[in-house]
Amino acid sequence: MKRPAVIPQQIIARKRDGDTLSAPELEALLTGYLDGQVGDDQMAAFLMAVYFNGLGDAELDVLVEVMLHSGDMLPRGGVRAPRVDKHSTGGVGDKVSLVLAPLAAEMGLVVPMMSGRGLGHTGGTLDKLESIPGFRTRISLDRFDRILRSVGCAMIGQTEEIAPLDRRLYALRDVTGTVPSLPLITASIMSKKLAESLDGLVLDVKVGEGAFLSHIDRARALARAMAGVGAARGLAVTAVLSAMDRPLGRTVGNALEAREAVECLAGGGADDLRELVTELAAEMSLAGGLVPDLDEGRRKAGETLAGGGALERFRRMVAEQGGSLDLSCDGYGLPAAPATEVVTANRAGVVAGINPRALGYGIIPMGGGRTRQDQDIDPRVGFELEVRVGDRVARGDPLAVVHGSTRDDLFIGARVVVEAVTIGDLPGSEPLPLIIERITA
Amino acid sequence: MKRPAVIPQQIIARKRDGDTLSAPELEALLTGYLDGQVGDDQMAAFLMAVYFNGLGDAELDVLVEVMLHSGDMLPRGGVRAPRVDKHSTGGVGDKVSLVLAPLAAEMGLVVPMMSGRGLGHTGGTLDKLESIPGFRTRISLDRFDRILRSVGCAMIGQTEEIAPLDRRLYALRDVTGTVPSLPLITASIMSKKLAESLDGLVLDVKVGEGAFLSHIDRARALARAMAGVGAARGLAVTAVLSAMDRPLGRTVGNALEAREAVECLAGGGADDLRELVTELAAEMSLAGGLVPDLDEGRRKAGETLAGGGALERFRRMVAEQGGSLDLSCDGYGLPAAPATEVVTANRAGVVAGINPRALGYGIIPMGGGRTRQDQDIDPRVGFELEVRVGDRVARGDPLAVVHGSTRDDLFIGARVVVEAVTIGDLPGSEPLPLIIERITA
Repeated sequence: MKRPAVIPQQIIARKRDGDTLSAPELEALLTGYLDGQVGDDQMAAFLMAVYFNGLGDAELDVLVEVMLHSGDMLPRGGVRAPRVDKHSTGGVGDKVSLVLAPLAAEMGLVVPMMSGRGLGHTGGTLDKLESIPGFRTRISLDRFDRILRSVGCAMIGQTEEIAPLDRRLYALRDVTGTVPSLPLITASIMSKKLAESLDGLVLDVKVGEGAFLSHIDRARALARAMAGVGAARGLAVTAVLSAMDRPLGRTVGNALEAREAVECLAGGGADDLRELVTELAAEMSLAGGLVPDLDEGRRKAGETLAGGGALERFRRMVAEQGGSLDLSCDGYGLPAAPATEVVTANRAGVVAGINPRALGYGIIPMGGGRTRQDQDIDPRVGFELEVRVGDRVARGDPLAVVHGSTRDDLFIGARVVVEAVTIGDLPGSEPLPLIIERITA
Repeated sequence: MKRPAVIPQQIIARKRDGDTLSAPELEALLTGYLDGQVGDDQMAAFLMAVYFNGLGDAELDVLVEVMLHSGDMLPRGGVRAPRVDKHSTGGVGDKVSLVLAPLAAEMGLVVPMMSGRGLGHTGGTLDKLESIPGFRTRISLDRFDRILRSVGCAMIGQTEEIAPLDRRLYALRDVTGTVPSLPLITASIMSKKLAESLDGLVLDVKVGEGAFLSHIDRARALARAMAGVGAARGLAVTAVLSAMDRPLGRTVGNALEAREAVECLAGGGADDLRELVTELAAEMSLAGGLVPDLDEGRRKAGETLAGGGALERFRRMVAEQGGSLDLSCDGYGLPAAPATEVVTANRAGVVAGINPRALGYGIIPMGGGRTRQDQDIDPRVGFELEVRVGDRVARGDPLAVVHGSTRDDLFIGARVVVEAVTIGDLPGSEPLPLIIERITA
């Protein structure tokens, strides 16, 4: 007869009722989940209760600790250069990491980047990387370390060894509507980043309709919570709050975003993408002690991006991770959707808003996103925006190109674009500044 | 590539955010769960969101409809007698059904009782019945109908055919801390009871620390919600609010409770158990049109219970369902725990309270309850109370007998008793009246 030490539903009920869990209680629930005594269904209910009732500082601390110690730390290896990473809280069209990691490496940092897959309506860096033919985001930690030493940056998924509790909770939150919880986001990000054995961490905390936290107060609270968790463990954290009231850059969809990232590395791409990459690279170089101030960091980042070395470093990293890009041809050898359709404006006016969340969710029924973590996705589908917020359009002007694998996709995608892009007689409310503010511990 | 029509996390998120779901949306989620497109984890998160944000009347109506139509209705068969059932919202020590079903049948009603297993800290009628050697709560609907015709009452678990959606949600709520939700309780009970093709339904809505709803306002709201759902579908519902601020009767634990039920059918047993059974039998006979008023119903119920016919009917029902009871011997042939221990008062005073919830949860680590629906239980373990609230005790007087299968059980159980039974210098707050009030649609 099974006689469980933990009665999970009792602990769930206490969190549901707003009680504060003791450290042993929360530890028992979490380790019970790790060893299979507590089921996904129970953990999902617990996570939803946490969504509603939050976690106190001591509870958050237990969660981070159990996550971190559920696995290994990345070895620092023999590398001497400052080890700095960036993490984004997730947005729509956010392909920053693909540009930033090689850029920061080219500037002299070591960037051991562990990223995630799509969560809810947002895409994930791993999915974007895997749209590159052959690219492997699952490599051994030895190989990861070798690439870090030779290229200065490497980009992988969370391995089995790193914070396995976080990996499982992340997947569960994705499918259970429990993503936008401040303490859960904090613990998830910080447990992974603490495991990277970093010298500094820069967070890109997204704000707006396309972010998990749409209000700036919540974004600030998240930034402060993460900085606090880092500070308690000796890791300096700087957070940049950036705009996600519209998509970042011109594309949404995995292969399309990989293409836009390469364009940016080649000195082109959308202005907003380049500006944000530059700012974050400046923060990373400051955190790593490469520059005396942010202005110098920005200057150096711009110069480095223009120099082409970052693109070459990206190419080397891709090659080391098994991927093949052909930088000489038009689509860089990335997979392209067999069908496209241009969606045009059905009236004249001003683009008052582009709803990033509608585009993010819209990609799911086209096969480009997941409703469950184990689903395959089609990297080719997505949206290429032809307008930005504030643009004037005439009736019949192109708004976006939908990329789909079937005619049905195009039909679905066109409806998504019409829903997402608002055309009015007057400009909409003032968009957020791209870089909103900066928070340090 | 899988392209789901439903994006479960989006629907979960809408409920989480307090939005009202449209009928098609909620239907899609529920039918998606039935056909495996929506997982237990997702449904658990949804249920917890419902716990926090409730369901509107229209949403509740959709839930009841989908549950009811996920399966079959019980056939009325050829039986002419009024078909009336009782359902309890669940408590600790609540063995009423085992006494009431044969009593009501002996009074002239047909009682097609479908019961459940333990939910959270409360026991379930099925578990109590199955403590009788050989008793089968899973029989075919044909056999169920034959027993109803010959004995007038039969007691089964929810079959595969009846409200399978409710069955699955019930099991899930049990382990995920999502039991005490008013709309979920309402839908669960009413979908099953509507499927029984009844002429009348009496609800025993428990109030107090040992109930799922401890506050009387919530219990009243539940009673009204259930009466409303019944009325909308032509089923007259009467609710009796009864006390669950202490255990009902003298025993907690499956075989111990079965024994107490037989004692009550034999004209003995605890006063409170007999009083509640009599009241509910009076309500059932009134609902079935057998008596002109409740007083006459109570009189007839008391007389019938004293006559011994109800016990004989219980014996026949048990035999028809494969069970064997030996009414001539002391323990009726029920399984008995190999070890017992008397827990005594460590001080003199007045029994100020007996916490039913502590006893209900306390039985789980002794193997007598479940933390997951698929666990086996030991029917023998439990508590036999030697005191009632308000009793005076001297130091060393027995408070309860713990029945266990190992010495460890006794140790655990003794601690539970000490925790559950409060002895003070003065009586505690006034206990609730056993029968609190009556609510009709």
